[in-house]
Amino acid sequence: MQFDVLIEVRPRQGISDPEGATIERSLPTLGYDGVTSVRVGKAIRCTIEAEDEALAHAELEDLCARFLTNPVIEDAAISMQPQVER
Amino acid sequence: MQFDVLIEVRPRQGISDPEGATIERSLPTLGYDGVTSVRVGKAIRCTIEAEDEALAHAELEDLCARFLTNPVIEDAAISMQPQVER
Repeated sequence: MQFDVLIEVRPRQGISDPEGATIERSLPTLGYDGVTSVRVGKAIRCTIEAEDEALAHAELEDLCARFLTNPVIEDAAISMQPQVER
Repeated sequence: MQFDVLIEVRPRQGISDPEGATIERSLPTLGYDGVTSVRVGKAIRCTIEAEDEALAHAELEDLCARFLTNPVIEDAAISMQPQVER
């Protein structure tokens, strides 16, 4: 069974995010008021082949913890849905 | 009215994504089979203050096209939900 996956990697709460801070500081000058709390992370999309959703989720959790994130400063949120058969 | 926003910036279809390709190539060696089509983009989270959802969406579209993405090589997907009152 194949699943379409989105892994959102984001800076943990309290960890500084210079890229987000820079965007947030610049926006009022550029004419965009009212945008706050800007945080920049990564969006990783992939496809995974696994027997069921629980197994796919476990493999992705492990993958995130070992390679895709730095658990000291980053969190990962995994969302997935079964791929529609073609 | 305040909205929690997620902007997913991803490489357009057909545009090469060296970071995603490198991850995909490494995974089988690291013991993860069955993960394919890896694409790495950005996940930008923010809060926007606007009168209604349509106005917020229009401002974000404009912001994405002008500053947050390079429309030649990147697409943006905006999702948002009203913030729960505290």
